[in-house]
Amino acid sequence: MSFFTSPQVQVSSKAIELLNGVLGKENISTAESVRDHHSRDESSLQAFLPDCVVFPKDTLQVSECMKICYAHSLPVIPFGTGTGLEGGITAVKGGVCMDLSHMKQILSVNQEDFDCTVQPGVTRMMLNSDLRATGLWFPVDPGADASLCGMAATSASGTNAVRYGTMRENVMNLEVVLSNGDVLHSAGGGRRTRKTAAGYNMTNLFVGSEGTLGVITQATLRLYGIPEATLSAVCQFQSVQSAVDATVATLQAGIPIARIEFLDDVQMKACINYSNLEGLQELSTLFLEFHGTDDSVKAQADVVGEIVQLNEGSDFMYATEAEDRNKLWTARHSAFYAASSLRPGSRILTTDVCVPISELPEIITQTKNDISKSSLLGPIVGHVGDGNFHTLLLIDPEDESERKIAKDLANRMAQRALAVGGTCTGEHGIGIGKRHLLAEELGQVGIQTMRSIKEALDPKGIMNPGKVFL
Amino acid sequence: MSFFTSPQVQVSSKAIELLNGVLGKENISTAESVRDHHSRDESSLQAFLPDCVVFPKDTLQVSECMKICYAHSLPVIPFGTGTGLEGGITAVKGGVCMDLSHMKQILSVNQEDFDCTVQPGVTRMMLNSDLRATGLWFPVDPGADASLCGMAATSASGTNAVRYGTMRENVMNLEVVLSNGDVLHSAGGGRRTRKTAAGYNMTNLFVGSEGTLGVITQATLRLYGIPEATLSAVCQFQSVQSAVDATVATLQAGIPIARIEFLDDVQMKACINYSNLEGLQELSTLFLEFHGTDDSVKAQADVVGEIVQLNEGSDFMYATEAEDRNKLWTARHSAFYAASSLRPGSRILTTDVCVPISELPEIITQTKNDISKSSLLGPIVGHVGDGNFHTLLLIDPEDESERKIAKDLANRMAQRALAVGGTCTGEHGIGIGKRHLLAEELGQVGIQTMRSIKEALDPKGIMNPGKVFL
Repeated sequence: MSFFTSPQVQVSSKAIELLNGVLGKENISTAESVRDHHSRDESSLQAFLPDCVVFPKDTLQVSECMKICYAHSLPVIPFGTGTGLEGGITAVKGGVCMDLSHMKQILSVNQEDFDCTVQPGVTRMMLNSDLRATGLWFPVDPGADASLCGMAATSASGTNAVRYGTMRENVMNLEVVLSNGDVLHSAGGGRRTRKTAAGYNMTNLFVGSEGTLGVITQATLRLYGIPEATLSAVCQFQSVQSAVDATVATLQAGIPIARIEFLDDVQMKACINYSNLEGLQELSTLFLEFHGTDDSVKAQADVVGEIVQLNEGSDFMYATEAEDRNKLWTARHSAFYAASSLRPGSRILTTDVCVPISELPEIITQTKNDISKSSLLGPIVGHVGDGNFHTLLLIDPEDESERKIAKDLANRMAQRALAVGGTCTGEHGIGIGKRHLLAEELGQVGIQTMRSIKEALDPKGIMNPGKVFL
Repeated sequence: MSFFTSPQVQVSSKAIELLNGVLGKENISTAESVRDHHSRDESSLQAFLPDCVVFPKDTLQVSECMKICYAHSLPVIPFGTGTGLEGGITAVKGGVCMDLSHMKQILSVNQEDFDCTVQPGVTRMMLNSDLRATGLWFPVDPGADASLCGMAATSASGTNAVRYGTMRENVMNLEVVLSNGDVLHSAGGGRRTRKTAAGYNMTNLFVGSEGTLGVITQATLRLYGIPEATLSAVCQFQSVQSAVDATVATLQAGIPIARIEFLDDVQMKACINYSNLEGLQELSTLFLEFHGTDDSVKAQADVVGEIVQLNEGSDFMYATEAEDRNKLWTARHSAFYAASSLRPGSRILTTDVCVPISELPEIITQTKNDISKSSLLGPIVGHVGDGNFHTLLLIDPEDESERKIAKDLANRMAQRALAVGGTCTGEHGIGIGKRHLLAEELGQVGIQTMRSIKEALDPKGIMNPGKVFL
C-alpha cells in the first residue's frame, strides 16, 4: 500500500542477534504483519514501519534491550496500546518498537493509602476491573482503553479531569528506563507520598514526554474512593452558545462537578445511531455527572438544573441506575468510533485545543462556523469543564485535498486558541502532527529549553526520534 | 559574630559598575547590614553573606543582571521573603543576591477563569487581601507570609493542601529568567489553560527547583471560589495514636476535608500561651476545617465527629464565626513562632518528612518517643492529611552538642520515613540541609538525572550554587 513508508532498515542482524539473546526468539519479530500493526496509531497520520518489534517481559529486559540499542544508536519507540492520536508511536526513523503489553502485572494496591503500582501493559479498564472489590477506582479516562503508562507518557486526561485532574496530578512515581539502560525511579524507588519537595519534579517531566526521554516501565498512581452516590444526567440546548454558557456558569458557581461533556448536534446524530441512545435529539447536548453523598449529588444537580434553565436548556434526563449510566458514558467514550461511522471508510483528523473557560463559547462557535463552511463533516465533543474540546474531522485517507482542508481547519483552530491564551493540545500530545504548533506556542526560548533537556537525557537522540521537536 | 561566614569576595568592581548601569546605584547594595539581612532564612542553618544585593524592578532588569552575572560567572541567589527553612537563600559561595521584593504587582486577575498572574514580590497574604472583593482566593498557605514565586520555587504547601493541592497543582505558568538572561515562559507566553499536553511539563520542573535553574519573575496561579460555608472545629485526644488514627480514618472515608492539622501536647502548650487559646488543654489535638454549602459542611462534620468519637476523641469545639476561625488558624500559622517562645533565645531545627498516610500513626509515635528520650524540646505539628509532619527542635544556636543531637534526631526520622516509602521533605525543600538525604532518597541514577538537567539549564553552575546537590 502506498500509504506506508518503510525507512531505511537500520537494525543490523548483529543487533537482532543480541536482542534475541536477551528476549528469546519468540519475543522479537521482524514479520511484516507485526511491524505493520505497530506502524500507526488511531489517527489518520502516515504510518511508518519499525524494523522490528520486541516484547520484553520485565524491566531488566527493557534495560538490557536499551543498552543494545544505545550501543548501536538504534531508534527505540515505546508502544503501549497504539491508541494515541498524534502519531506518537509511528517509527518515522525505523528502529526498534518496544511493545510493553506483555508486562501486565498490577504490582501493588495499597488500599489504605489510595495508591497502586502497575506495569506498562495494564490498561485503565483492567485496573478498574481489578479494583472493583476494594471500593477504589482510577478516574483518568481517555476514550480508548489505553495503557496507564502510555497515558502517563501522553499526559492523557478525559471526562473526569474537571474534578480529579489529569495524569499530571495522578502519577506519584514512575520507573523509567533511560536511553543508556539505566533504571530511574522519578521520585526514588518505592516512594509513594501524596506530596514531596525533594528536588526536581522528574515524575512530571516524564508525564507527557511521549517516549522521547525514556521508556516508562512502571507507574505509581493515586486512587480514589468510589463515590457513595453517582448521578448522571443529560440536557439539550438549541444552540452551542447556550450549552457552553451553561458550562461556564456551572464552573463559576463552584459546583464540584465530576463530568461535564459537550456534544454538538452532529456528534449527537452519530452517537444516537451508533450507541442507540433513545429519547435524545440531534441538538447541542451536555452529559453531566455528580459524585458525592445522596444528598450532595441532588443538591449539586438542583443548582446546575437552575443554571441550565437560565440558559434555555431542556429539563434533565436522569440516569440513576448503573446500567443507564454505563450506557450514557459508553456512548461518550465511543464518540470517536461513532463519528467514524458517519462516513464509512473515512479516517479522523482530531483536534485538541484547550482555552481559558471564558473563551470557550466564542471559540467553539467560531470553530463550528468554520467547519460548516468547509466540505467536511466535523462533529465536536468537548471536555468543556477544562476548556478542552475536539473536532473529529472525517476525511477520505486517499484524498489529499480533503486532508489539506482538514489540516487548514485544524491550524486555524489552533491559531484561534493560541491567540486567547490557549494551547494546541489539552490531552493528545504533540507527536508528529503538532510540532510546528508547539514551536509557535512556546516560542524560541521554550523550545530551546525543552531541547536542552532532551539532549541531556537522551544524548544520542535514540528515544522516539522525530516526535515533539521539529 | 562568629556565626557568619563571608566567603571570598567574587563580585568585581567592574561587575558592580555594570550592575549599577542596569539598576541605578540606589538599587544595589554592598552594605554589611543589607548583606547580613540576606544571609540566612528562618532556619538555624549557618548564614553566608552575599557580596552584594540587587533590587531589580522588572523582568528586563533581572535579565540584564543575569547576563552580567553569566558573563562574569557570578553566583546568583534569588530572594523572595527569606522565610525558607532549609537555607535555600544562603550565599554559600558568595555572589549576587537578587531580592525581588520591589516587583510587587498583581498583573492580572481573571475572575471568570479563576486565575491570576503575579510578580515575585507579591506575598500570599497580599494576593488574598487584593482578591477579597472578587470572591476568589488562593489556598496554598505555608506558615510564613511568603512570596508566591518563592513558594513556587520551594514547592510549598500548607494546611489546605489536603483539599486544594500544593504549588505543584496550582501553578499554571511561570516566567523564568534563565542563567544566560533568556526569558522563558514555561507554558508559553500568556498561556493559562487548566490543562495542557504541549511538550515537557517545564512549569513543574521549575516548581521546586529552589532557584537552581533560573529566577522566577512571574507566576500564573489557579484561584478558587471562597466556599459558601466554612466550618472550623477542634478536638482533643488522650494519645498521639488516637488523633492520627482518626485522621487516617477520615481520609479513608473520603471526606473532602479542607484542613486537618495535628498538634501534639507540647505544641499545644506553646500555642495556648503564645496565641491565647482558651478552653483547650495540653493534649494531642486536631484543628479541622470543612468547606462547602451550609448543609454539606454540617454533614461532613457529623461524619468526622463520629470517627473522632470512635477514636476516643473529645466533642468538637466549633469555630463558626470568622473571628474565631481566624484566631484558630492564626494560632496554627504561628506554631513556629509559638514553639520558639518555649525557649527564648533558641533557634529551631525543623524536620519535614512525609509518608503514606497508613504509616503516619507509627512514625509519629516513634518520633515522639525518640524526642522524649533526648534532652531537647521538640513540638510536633503536622499536615497529617497529606502524611506530612514537622518537629520543631529547639536548640541553643551556640551549643554544637545540641545541634548534633537535633541533627541526629532529624536523620533518624528521615531514615524511618525513607524506609516506609516516604520522603525527607514534604514541602520545605532540600536547600543545604538535606542534600545527603536527597541522594539517599533518589539513588544514584535519580541524582545523576537531576544533575544532568541542572547542567543543561545552568551550564556555568551560577544559579544558587551549593543547593539541592552535594
